[in-house]
Amino acid sequence: MPLDVYLLPAWTNPADLTNRVVVVIDLLRATTTITQALAAGACEVIPCLEVAEAQTLADQWRKEPSCGGVVLGGERGGQRIPGFDLGNSPAEYTAESVGGKTVIFTTTNGTRAMQLCRQARRVLLGSFNSFSALVAELQGERDLALLCAGTAGLVTAEDVYFAGALVDAFLANGLGVPQNDEAVLARVAWRGLAGRETAERLASHLHDSRGGRNLAQLGMQDDILWAARIDTIDVVAELHPRDWRIRLIP
Amino acid sequence: MPLDVYLLPAWTNPADLTNRVVVVIDLLRATTTITQALAAGACEVIPCLEVAEAQTLADQWRKEPSCGGVVLGGERGGQRIPGFDLGNSPAEYTAESVGGKTVIFTTTNGTRAMQLCRQARRVLLGSFNSFSALVAELQGERDLALLCAGTAGLVTAEDVYFAGALVDAFLANGLGVPQNDEAVLARVAWRGLAGRETAERLASHLHDSRGGRNLAQLGMQDDILWAARIDTIDVVAELHPRDWRIRLIP
Repeated sequence: MPLDVYLLPAWTNPADLTNRVVVVIDLLRATTTITQALAAGACEVIPCLEVAEAQTLADQWRKEPSCGGVVLGGERGGQRIPGFDLGNSPAEYTAESVGGKTVIFTTTNGTRAMQLCRQARRVLLGSFNSFSALVAELQGERDLALLCAGTAGLVTAEDVYFAGALVDAFLANGLGVPQNDEAVLARVAWRGLAGRETAERLASHLHDSRGGRNLAQLGMQDDILWAARIDTIDVVAELHPRDWRIRLIP
Repeated sequence: MPLDVYLLPAWTNPADLTNRVVVVIDLLRATTTITQALAAGACEVIPCLEVAEAQTLADQWRKEPSCGGVVLGGERGGQRIPGFDLGNSPAEYTAESVGGKTVIFTTTNGTRAMQLCRQARRVLLGSFNSFSALVAELQGERDLALLCAGTAGLVTAEDVYFAGALVDAFLANGLGVPQNDEAVLARVAWRGLAGRETAERLASHLHDSRGGRNLAQLGMQDDILWAARIDTIDVVAELHPRDWRIRLIP
């Protein structure tokens, strides 16, 4: 199948994604954390761009819950937002904190990338934790776009490594053909990472990126290591663009 | 020194290059061929965006030559332009064809990248043929921007590999610090190329890129192999933005 990698939402046209299967990649941390929230039993996740929008939505949802309660999560500048229940660390999203509930989640980079996908055929979320499950889900698809979210409008390497790992998995299975040179480069970069087979070594590469350095400066190295663990969960998160909710694929 | 890599002119602001030392990279083939022309004894190269502009300039130059004659070179769609003396293959630029002459040269990708550099402090041209000479020339500089020309507005991997090789050389010498993640990724991609030490293996990687495939389809594989030979010439080409001429550094 043809595979394209897009390094930033700003360098991607909505037409590049129209009628395609898109994997949104915001590895540190939105797509890792949202996948974790659903794996931990959250009933759905609703991504919001703005803090006020998330708060308004949470108030509405509390009056008419579609699941067993509402949790407000997300970050600004990497930190939990005042008045929110949870931040953006995957470890915070447990059966106790989010099981059976709607998570209303605000993060800028990941949400902006998702908003580009309104005309996509399907939108899946990327995380190393659910890597093999995602590859299996994509096997039958025909036309794939891998969209890196970036950090504050700039390319960040960890998203590109994940895109390269996906390209590599599809090429290894004889299933994918890179279309643009970003896909070729992402794959070569992924294959060039020494010791990427262990979570600790992979985490050191994720650390050496714009997103990784930001987290390390906040003392959140544990989140980098969490994001570097391959195949810890066997689920795939899918955004349904029409009702704008992220759920697990049943 | 801080190092940034820019993957395309369209993704680069002129401000990103202002007062910096810029290496323009259009490996297949403009910056390789121009460097070769100067190494073969051309007295200067004048880059032009348009065919008509090149022809007009050549007519003027023939009336008032600044060197011992004028040669018109360049390509459209990879092929020599009707009425031009030479195409864009480095092998065409010999002491016999261009020695002592002004080369008026038209190519779209490379020239467009050079035009972004009007406010740069210095503008050097990238080629593997002159790799070590370029690294030596850059050693004393403080702030470096590596600008990939791309192909027809799209990222092409071979330019990024060359940028990565430069980043790697500076890091190996303890001289460079990647600033943007494109620089990190370019370096990892370069280091991930198997067998890049031999021209034949490096050429196979250059072939597997947008620019390489275009040339191969035109039957110009020899140009790819030429561009993949590291350190065959000991010169560096520099564009002087004010008088818009490219000359060897004395």
